[in-house]
Amino acid sequence: MGPHPAVAEIRRAVRRSLADVPNGALVLVACSGGTDSLALAACLGFAAPRMGRRAGLLSVDHGLQEGSAERARGVVALAAELGLEPAEAHTVSVGRSGGPEAAARDARYEALSLAAGRLGAAAVFLGHTLDDQAETVLMRLSRGSGTRSLAGMPGTSGIYRRPLLGVARATTRVACEALGLTPWDDPHNVDPAYTRVRVRHDVLPVLERALGPGVKEALARTAGLCRDDADALDAWADEAYAQVRGLGSELTVAGLKVLPGAVRRRVIQRAALAAGANASALAAVHIEHVEHLVTEWRGQRVVELPGGIGVVRRYGTLIFASTLS
Amino acid sequence: MGPHPAVAEIRRAVRRSLADVPNGALVLVACSGGTDSLALAACLGFAAPRMGRRAGLLSVDHGLQEGSAERARGVVALAAELGLEPAEAHTVSVGRSGGPEAAARDARYEALSLAAGRLGAAAVFLGHTLDDQAETVLMRLSRGSGTRSLAGMPGTSGIYRRPLLGVARATTRVACEALGLTPWDDPHNVDPAYTRVRVRHDVLPVLERALGPGVKEALARTAGLCRDDADALDAWADEAYAQVRGLGSELTVAGLKVLPGAVRRRVIQRAALAAGANASALAAVHIEHVEHLVTEWRGQRVVELPGGIGVVRRYGTLIFASTLS
Repeated sequence: MGPHPAVAEIRRAVRRSLADVPNGALVLVACSGGTDSLALAACLGFAAPRMGRRAGLLSVDHGLQEGSAERARGVVALAAELGLEPAEAHTVSVGRSGGPEAAARDARYEALSLAAGRLGAAAVFLGHTLDDQAETVLMRLSRGSGTRSLAGMPGTSGIYRRPLLGVARATTRVACEALGLTPWDDPHNVDPAYTRVRVRHDVLPVLERALGPGVKEALARTAGLCRDDADALDAWADEAYAQVRGLGSELTVAGLKVLPGAVRRRVIQRAALAAGANASALAAVHIEHVEHLVTEWRGQRVVELPGGIGVVRRYGTLIFASTLS
Repeated sequence: MGPHPAVAEIRRAVRRSLADVPNGALVLVACSGGTDSLALAACLGFAAPRMGRRAGLLSVDHGLQEGSAERARGVVALAAELGLEPAEAHTVSVGRSGGPEAAARDARYEALSLAAGRLGAAAVFLGHTLDDQAETVLMRLSRGSGTRSLAGMPGTSGIYRRPLLGVARATTRVACEALGLTPWDDPHNVDPAYTRVRVRHDVLPVLERALGPGVKEALARTAGLCRDDADALDAWADEAYAQVRGLGSELTVAGLKVLPGAVRRRVIQRAALAAGANASALAAVHIEHVEHLVTEWRGQRVVELPGGIGVVRRYGTLIFASTLS
């Protein structure tokens, strides 16, 4: 008798993701003890040695909840049974920058990257599922910032990999049951103070009722298509930027004029960032005002960008310069 | 005292849309008598003559609801008071192809196009608002078919223009009140049998509660950005298609290989349609299977496309040919 279908599906996803990891290399799984990362950890522990790869585990204690240190130690203790070694718990201190969710994420990735570097890991597996991807796309929709934003989470980013982006959360739950594993239910996962929780519990069920089943899958597919589109446009914009750029930080108006709007605005963004504009404050509306110096020229004065950068049109070029003396 | 702010906002949108209509030309507004198109009709009737354009009205009776013929005649009778002339009611017969919403839409646009042609109109204004655009994006999300689909409704398409895509539905309602106009409340607008109604009444309020205010505006902005991105990628794909195409309907594998996936798949789609594949049945999964003949070549046999088209890889080319003998 083969494994339970849910377990088989996750193992397949893990094997696909392991395929281009070098033989003998170490792969770590980031595991909170929650359903998704626990199922992923178990299936990595099973599949990796059979493919000649080594597998280990990292658990991050954010120190934000009662008993979090014990839980991280419990996950590490379980790792040996799952065939994962080395297994380490790391306690991080979470700052406040960018809000509680972003601060916890930053601290977590910093700890994971440090540990992966020290252990010489070739990859770190993350347990994000198709449901997480669908939720991410919906959350990004509210930004109205276009294709790159709708691309959701990448399947691969540096050493990080998300083998379960095509696997439903329901599958990881069933897999844990089939494997006799008891996942930890993070109380944050039902706390409506978090945007993601509201999207998961309030928005997605209503969306499925209104649009029919398969919405989550459609959102995840949308993410993949938007990622490819954004990648292609970024490649075009890189090339176009190199062509319309002068010796300094100026852009030729004639070169910008013949580009499609989507590429022109990406080129302007590159020039703005290269000139020192503040990346997190630079919004679509700023880029548009610079674009109007090309497409709706009527002698405008300097366009101000966050970070103390001004843009003027002079002698057929856009000049990006600091307005701080 | 100037006009009510809601009226002023709609008049501004109408004037912007009229700006590149030739002087003396006729602009028609498609008006059901509902809030959005009634406000648009009133503001067109006000603004057009002041800008030297002529303005008329078309009302389509779908013959699907009790009293629809009287209502269309009532809208036409009101037109004279709004300064719109000529004004015509057209009765259409709605088929069943593609579902009730699509069939009614097809019949409506056919009648509008015919009347516009006969009257020599330069443009037909449609009353779709920012809310309609947001609803459209959400409905398209469930298709999971990517950037072009998320682009929503275009501001301009042939003779059709949608001047109110940046104006909230709440504004058209207030404008009607301010102008003393009594719009017709289409009972279809609250019938949960329609996907759009479910999105409007069930999904959007929940989404705004979960993600905060401004979701509709963000969705509409997303539509605009996705449209520009899709346009740019289509332009690239047109050029690439001309380059990798042989003398017949084949594509060179080497040419396809160097393209980014987003462009490669658009080129394959063009070749499939040119070879006679069924456009409405051709799905992303078919295109992917053809793409695998390039990116994951291991001697696959023919890939079948809807419409009786087969694709094979031979001598470094993809050959698209009819499989029907």
